[in-house]
Amino acid sequence: MMPTPLPGLPERVTIYEVGPRDGLQNEKAIVPVEVKSEFVTRLADAGLGTIETTSFVHPKWVPQLADAEELLGVLPRSGVVRYPVLVPNERGLDRALANGITEIAIFGSATETFARRNLNRTVDESLAMFAPVVDRARAEGLWVRAYVSMACGDPWEGDVPIEQVVSVASRLMDLGCSQLSIGDTIGVGTPGHVTALIEALAAAGIGTERLAVHFHDTYGQALANTLAALRAGVTVVDASAGGLGGCPYAESATGNLPTEDLVWMLNGLGVETGVDLGKLVATSRWMAGRLGRPSPSRVVQALSPTTEK
Amino acid sequence: MMPTPLPGLPERVTIYEVGPRDGLQNEKAIVPVEVKSEFVTRLADAGLGTIETTSFVHPKWVPQLADAEELLGVLPRSGVVRYPVLVPNERGLDRALANGITEIAIFGSATETFARRNLNRTVDESLAMFAPVVDRARAEGLWVRAYVSMACGDPWEGDVPIEQVVSVASRLMDLGCSQLSIGDTIGVGTPGHVTALIEALAAAGIGTERLAVHFHDTYGQALANTLAALRAGVTVVDASAGGLGGCPYAESATGNLPTEDLVWMLNGLGVETGVDLGKLVATSRWMAGRLGRPSPSRVVQALSPTTEK
Repeated sequence: MMPTPLPGLPERVTIYEVGPRDGLQNEKAIVPVEVKSEFVTRLADAGLGTIETTSFVHPKWVPQLADAEELLGVLPRSGVVRYPVLVPNERGLDRALANGITEIAIFGSATETFARRNLNRTVDESLAMFAPVVDRARAEGLWVRAYVSMACGDPWEGDVPIEQVVSVASRLMDLGCSQLSIGDTIGVGTPGHVTALIEALAAAGIGTERLAVHFHDTYGQALANTLAALRAGVTVVDASAGGLGGCPYAESATGNLPTEDLVWMLNGLGVETGVDLGKLVATSRWMAGRLGRPSPSRVVQALSPTTEK
Repeated sequence: MMPTPLPGLPERVTIYEVGPRDGLQNEKAIVPVEVKSEFVTRLADAGLGTIETTSFVHPKWVPQLADAEELLGVLPRSGVVRYPVLVPNERGLDRALANGITEIAIFGSATETFARRNLNRTVDESLAMFAPVVDRARAEGLWVRAYVSMACGDPWEGDVPIEQVVSVASRLMDLGCSQLSIGDTIGVGTPGHVTALIEALAAAGIGTERLAVHFHDTYGQALANTLAALRAGVTVVDASAGGLGGCPYAESATGNLPTEDLVWMLNGLGVETGVDLGKLVATSRWMAGRLGRPSPSRVVQALSPTTEK
């Protein structure tokens, strides 16, 4: 399709690829480190410049990512591609520093229930846990992203008030984080809510230049919400190659926004991403073959031979 | 979720439900008329006020809809719910009039290739065929909708210039049609293109009060495109319960916008539709059971018990 811009959208969007971490962490069968390494390398070759690669969480909680050191050890570090790693606590930061990681992400929760279930802490306790992580990371010159999960709704608490999200977001940013990713972990949000949330964050001093959005397609809303976020000024969008993933501790939190469906829209809008869609689709088809099931991405399905569907 | 409006959207959207016709016409196994009747009746009971029920096409071309008269004969006609029927030609109009139908739709093409493949005619010849259909229908007091299909792209011709769509659309409306449904039959469109197309139609005298949009989710763009259309002033949106359907004569034209995913978004935006989402999801789950495969609607999947997935 010839691109047709929409007024008010950014010229360029940075896609923050989460497939290797957020996508794979849910897989029950352990994916061999060689497959992960090829996956990340092919994603980079497809033009994705930021790839959240793994997590330094304790292997007991996410066995799938127990090979974090091994994976990072075999990835080519060109210096061009950024490989942020999720770091849950100070022990995780120790591992990140020992492995020469320069960009980390911490995973906060907007709700008490999810903080307890995912982090085994109250929101206050989780922020207290993050404070020394961010302090030390910043002192070591690391770039730090903060996720605020359950930002639109929570499976146990229902609606999550915008003020509550803004409060947790502000406290995370006050720790010294450089970027905030607003996570609609269970995919219930709609474009008006997303817009209101971004405006409320801006009013609280967290401007769109410091924001990313992280949508799940559980209710089919991810791309429409992304469009609303772009119109509100956001320029960093999280997505997962092939739509891999979800969240292991939140029921029905399946289906990240597929990177391919996002790239299709941005290509059509004439918004630059630097991503080669053909290479990306080929990568997700290959990965679907390794995982033994079709990709939920509509674009991957549409561009695959009928016999594969 | 508590609704959060987005400025510039309409207060109310009319959903034009196409599942029984556009959704079922593709099914290879004949769906019994009792099942179709229950499907339509349950959709009406869920609050859908306009349901394109069947087509008076020759049974040789669409065997699935050969039971049009029988189906219409058993549907309760309350006068509240509108049951438009697709009418391909004068013979189809005869059948519509003989069955007391008061609203019809004709199916035009923006491209020569699809006109030849779907209608076995050039675009000019198809318009010549439609002219007496619309004339007689109007003389009999019928409401007439015109589809313009392949409005964003065509599998054989590629990009479809906006001027070409506007030209065919204008000629269809000049015949005397009351409503134009812009059909992205193969689902390749993106929000900028959709917006530009709606603006070009308005500039040509076809205002948004006479427009509907008809998106397919082949590339995952349907809901984002719908959002763009709503922001451009459109208030009638075609959708298919459970995401049933596609187009039998256009490869990869699968996946209508699921009505449930649309209703989820509109509910979240505080836009009225009159639809009871719970009843609608239950209907689509029941229909998926009759068809023997899961619904592609994300909302239907998310709201169904895990054991059904």
